[in-house]
Order: sequence, then structure tokens, then C-alpha cells
Amino acid sequence: MANLERFSRIGALSGGGVCRLALTDEDKEARDILKDLMLDLGLEVKVDKIGNMFGTRTGKQDLSPVMIGSHLDTVGTGGCYDGSLGVLAAMETVETLNDQKIETQKSIMVVNFTNEEGVRFIPDMMGSLVVSGGIGLDEIYRAQSVDGSVNLYDELKRIGYEGKEPVDNLKADSYIELHIEQGPVLEHENIKIAAVEMVQGISWTEFIIHGQANHAGTTPMDLRKDAGYAASSIVQFARKLTKEVGGRQVANAGMLEVFPNLINVVPERVRLTLDLRNTDNSQLTLAEDKLEKFIRELEVKEKVTIESKRLVRFNPVDFDEEIINLIDQTAGELGYSRKRMHSGAGHDAQMMAVVCPTAMIFIPSKDGISHNVNEYSSPEDIEAGANVLLNAALKRAGRV
Amino acid sequence: MANLERFSRIGALSGGGVCRLALTDEDKEARDILKDLMLDLGLEVKVDKIGNMFGTRTGKQDLSPVMIGSHLDTVGTGGCYDGSLGVLAAMETVETLNDQKIETQKSIMVVNFTNEEGVRFIPDMMGSLVVSGGIGLDEIYRAQSVDGSVNLYDELKRIGYEGKEPVDNLKADSYIELHIEQGPVLEHENIKIAAVEMVQGISWTEFIIHGQANHAGTTPMDLRKDAGYAASSIVQFARKLTKEVGGRQVANAGMLEVFPNLINVVPERVRLTLDLRNTDNSQLTLAEDKLEKFIRELEVKEKVTIESKRLVRFNPVDFDEEIINLIDQTAGELGYSRKRMHSGAGHDAQMMAVVCPTAMIFIPSKDGISHNVNEYSSPEDIEAGANVLLNAALKRAGRV
Repeated sequence: MANLERFSRIGALSGGGVCRLALTDEDKEARDILKDLMLDLGLEVKVDKIGNMFGTRTGKQDLSPVMIGSHLDTVGTGGCYDGSLGVLAAMETVETLNDQKIETQKSIMVVNFTNEEGVRFIPDMMGSLVVSGGIGLDEIYRAQSVDGSVNLYDELKRIGYEGKEPVDNLKADSYIELHIEQGPVLEHENIKIAAVEMVQGISWTEFIIHGQANHAGTTPMDLRKDAGYAASSIVQFARKLTKEVGGRQVANAGMLEVFPNLINVVPERVRLTLDLRNTDNSQLTLAEDKLEKFIRELEVKEKVTIESKRLVRFNPVDFDEEIINLIDQTAGELGYSRKRMHSGAGHDAQMMAVVCPTAMIFIPSKDGISHNVNEYSSPEDIEAGANVLLNAALKRAGRV
Repeated sequence: MANLERFSRIGALSGGGVCRLALTDEDKEARDILKDLMLDLGLEVKVDKIGNMFGTRTGKQDLSPVMIGSHLDTVGTGGCYDGSLGVLAAMETVETLNDQKIETQKSIMVVNFTNEEGVRFIPDMMGSLVVSGGIGLDEIYRAQSVDGSVNLYDELKRIGYEGKEPVDNLKADSYIELHIEQGPVLEHENIKIAAVEMVQGISWTEFIIHGQANHAGTTPMDLRKDAGYAASSIVQFARKLTKEVGGRQVANAGMLEVFPNLINVVPERVRLTLDLRNTDNSQLTLAEDKLEKFIRELEVKEKVTIESKRLVRFNPVDFDEEIINLIDQTAGELGYSRKRMHSGAGHDAQMMAVVCPTAMIFIPSKDGISHNVNEYSSPEDIEAGANVLLNAALKRAGRV
């Protein structure tokens, strides 16, 4: 808790919360402190070419390490728990093993992944994406910041975290990431621990609807080409999709902009986004297909034209059954109420899932609030999560 | 046409169209030129305390004058016809009578009303509203410009149009206003002239919907309080109202703003406006009542709270049957295709309707476009409208 408090002051916002965007001075400060903490705990610290930080507590045997951790970067108005919890609970795991003088067969490796949030540089989950082979280092190095002012490689070098370790050679026995749920389910069901089975698939689409601006009083209803009405039909259809499509379909129309946005002018143009997610890829594809069909019919019915642009498409990622069970059973042994659930948000663990057996631990988020300065998880829940992480990692690493 | 062209250069926008907001330097320039034109035609020019300009061609008898005219102010990106046409066609009427040396029994009075558009100073139709007794001069004088920088009285004085005539003493035999339709009906039906029977009633409401911001991936659908979905339901219901409610109901959701407007965040708050219009006041009230009932049910169904604020409410205004018939018959005698219709937009004529027998003449607007730099009416249609105005005014004034 003291470390969480300490890191929440790095990039602290005046009204609470944290702004610690990837590869900024604040990110450097957090990394430097983490490195010192790692060295204090006797860990061997390495940094790879994308800036991922690894601190290894060497085991008895020359085996791939059990990886635990998360990320230290935040969104622009972030909370104190998203990411930091996973890294600092991993540090707590090591500290506890040190304090208890417990040795392990396999090494335990704490990781801080670079740029999980993807706010300043796109894409998100960047550090784990690179080590998973999902994108080339050269391409990532050329990435410009969202405001166009700097280049990723230059920033990585500037803050001193262009490491030497290759990114295509990460060996791990397993990866376990503790994270806040960022949703309301655990709190709503009054459950302390979730063993996360999977990350749902994501499909983001942007629509630009072109209608015709007309006088709201003088234009007969049947002569209107109302981009706003068409947009509202899409929003309504998205809700309908969540009922029609199987596999826990969710949908959100989060962004909607009307032009010219005047009370007495029929909307000429609307920009609208849809965020569709599903735990089942075939059902997500079905939702996309149904949406596409609806859009084409809507164009005819409302005499508008609709441009569609797929912004993001990730398949669902299944975690490793053995690691899921390990987390679930460990939580049970520790006497915590628990459930298995999917993650609605993206995490480094979904990239790591292609590298090694992976799963996640969730603890409750108050009111499901995250990416928000009011993000909060209680010390009791944090302790529970850290205990599950410690014990699951210890079991997986093998107590000597 | 030359005068229309001349006035279109006063406040001309570089890409076409006109910006001649009320009581600006551009408005003063247009007024000064109109005054000179009036004096050139031998009219007696008077200005009242709200800046309405009157140019009178004296008739044989001491009777109240036949008023014809409109307004010279425009919206920020206005066209060349809205308002100017009515004033300049009225001037053309006088010039034609002069050229033909035709005397009339009643005087004919050309009017340019102050601030019909209501863009820089609220309310719109200000000059005619004041002479109709709808609002007091003291209150209007204190009005601040929309940007808060100046006061109406100071601007009126600055441009030299704080006249001496009282505003509560306007005597008129009748008022006939020629205007572009600002809608697509005449063009769509290929008709040259409309005798306007009435102005429909207007009801403007602003809704602020309060939901809850949540993560679009992690929040189960049944735990969302989605202000955006609720807004789309209102937009859909507004269309439904136009089918359920009698009396030519139209509806427009022209303004819709989402907060925080992020692709992966459930909308926390939406600001939305509805513009309802109906030719029948009881039906408009019915539409308002049905809407209110729907809003209250929607709050419960979607677990949101909705603030409603009535922004504008005008009853429908019926024009004078005798003047409507005069216009209709005159158009027929001149051989123009014609119909009777209602006005979907507001006009000075609706204020004048309480002062004296009033009606309007509409000519087609290309594609129904108005309040737009692309506003266009053909010279042929303008000639037809001016001919109807001339002949109707002459009949009403009585040829000597």
C-alpha cells in the first residue's frame, strides 16, 4: 500500500488521480524508482529493446521463470491502481519471499510492460505486443506520438529505457497478472477474486452518415434525409444486437457528433462509433455481419449514405486452463469468495497468452470505475489479490 | 435583380452568401442605401424607436397604408434572398407605380423590420414583435448581444437608427410580405406562387440526460445507465410523433452532444434538442404531452434522469382570409401556378397579423435551402413573386 501511495504521487493530478503517459518524464521517474526497488530486493534487472523492464529473483533450477507484473503507465486522467497494482503486487510477492527466506525452483520475474495504455503512442499493449511477435520493432520505433511532436524511439532513448535485451527471445514458464476488474461485476456480486478465463474480442467501427441539412420547420418529413435519425437507428440496433447475438455480446455507441448541430436544422452529417465485444469470435463476426446488413438497409430506408471504417479488430483470447485453475484454487484455499469470468478490457496478458501459459487475477473496482481519477479498490481486496498472486506464483515456481 | 445583387455585396462572404447581422456596420450600410433609394423614389422616410424603417408613398385619401416589406438583416452565413427579397420587391412595387404614374387611394408603405433573424440579439422577429406589443421597448433596449459584448440600445444608437416614431402607434390597412419559401415544397410540386395561410406553431425543448459513464467492455448491459441510448430513443420517438399526431406535425432532433464522447465509454450525459412544429395548436400540445409522458417512462426504463427545458413556444398564427384570397386570386389572374400552404419558418408577418390583416407570398427556394450561402431563387420566380406583390398591393390600396 505504501508503494501504491508512492507511485500515485508520480504524475499526480491536482484533483486526485495520475497522469503518467508512456515514455514521459513521469514514466521515467516511475521506472527509475521501480529499478531501485528491484535492485534493493536483490533482483537482476534487464530492459529489452522496447523498454520492457524485467527483475528476476533467481530460482534453484535453470528453468524459464514465472512472470508476474503489469504496467506502470496510465491514461491522461488515470487512477492509482490500473497497472501499478500488478507491478507493485509482484514486487510485494518478491519482498515476501525474501522476508520469509523462501527459495523457489523456478525463477520469479517481475515485469513492467511499456505503454500498455496506448494513449500517447498507438497501439496499446505495445510492450507485450512486441515480445509476442505481433508487431516488428522497426515499425514500433517509427511510431509518432498522437500529437505528432515526437517519435517513439527518440523518447525511449531520451528517458534511458532503450534496453539491450532482444524482444524476440522472451522465455517464460507462465505469466500471471493481477489487475483491477475495471468493471462492476465483482462488486455487484460481492466476490473478492476472479480467475480470468479470457479476454473478449473487440470490434470498433466508425460510421459517417451523410444526409442533407434542411430547415426543421419547412421541410416535409418525407423529403428529409436526416443523418441524426439514421444515427439513432444504429444506436438502437446495437442494443438489439446484444439480445440477438449469443456469447455475451456487448455494444456501445460512445461517440456521436452531429453537424451542423443546430436546433432548427435537420442533421446533415453524423460521426458515430460502435464498440462491439464478444467472448465468442464467431458470434462477434455474426454481430458484425448483422450490423453491416442493417447499415445497408438503413441507407435505402433513410435516403442517406453511410461510410463504415473498421478501427480495431481483436479476436477473443483464451487463457491457459492450468493457470486459471491455479488462480481459482489458490483463491479458494485462501478462503476468498471467487468466480471465473472474462475480461471486458484489454491487457498485456492477452499478448503474453501466445508466449506462455497465462491467466489473470481480478479484484473488485468500486462502482466499476476505471480510467478515471476516482478509480478505487479497497486495501482488503488489494491484499486478497496480492495473496492470491503470491501463492499462485509460489506454487507455479515450486517451493524448495 | 440589380438591387438584390447590390445588397448581396453588403456583408458579402468570400465564398458567396452574406453576413449582415442586425445593427452591425453592414446593417447600417444596407439601411443607409435603402433610405437613399426610398428618398430617390420620393417616399417619406420614418424610423421608429426600435429602428424599423418605413417609406411611405402617399395615397389620395387619408387612410391607413398598405404595408409591404420584410427585413434586411441576415444570419451569419445567409443567402441573398431571405428578407432582402421582400424589402426590395416592395421598393420595386413603388418604383413601378412611379414609372407608370399610378396613384392609389391608400398610401403604400415599404417596411424594413429590425433584427428579424435574432442571431446577434435575441429574440428574433424583434422589430415586428415590438410594434405588435409583444414585448416592451425598455426590455428590448437592455438586451445584450449573444456574445455579451454590446447592448442593443447602444448599437441602435451607434448606427444611427434609434428613430423618433413611437412603436405603439403603427396603423396599417394590411401587411403583405413576399418571401422565399425556405423549404422544398413549391419546387418539389413545381408551383410558382404560394398564398401563405398561416405560420405553424413552434415548440423547442432541450433535454439533458444524465446516465453513468462506464467501461464499454467491462460493464454488463443490464448494469449500464446509457445516456446515449436514451437520447436515441427520444430521436426515434420524435419521428413516431409525426405519424401519430395530426395537423401536419414535424419534428427535428437537430442538436445532440455526448459526454465524454469516447468510443469505449458508455455516454454519461447527452444534451439534445427537439424542435416540434404543428399547424394546429391543440395537436402541438398533444405532441408535447405525449413527449413528456414518453420522457418520464424512459427515465424509469433506462435508469437515467432527464431534465427538460422549454426553450421556445409559439402558437400557430392564422393569416387573414381576405389577404390570402387576394394573393391567391392575383397569382391566378397573372397566370402563375399556385397553391395555399403554411409557413414552416417564422416571419415578421406572424407578428403583424395582430396589428392588421396580413398574409404572405412564397416563391420557390432551390432544394429548399435557406440560411445558407447556397440559397437560391430564380429570376423568373422572383419576377412572379414581385408581380403578385405589386398587383395585390395595388388592388388593396385601390387604383385612383
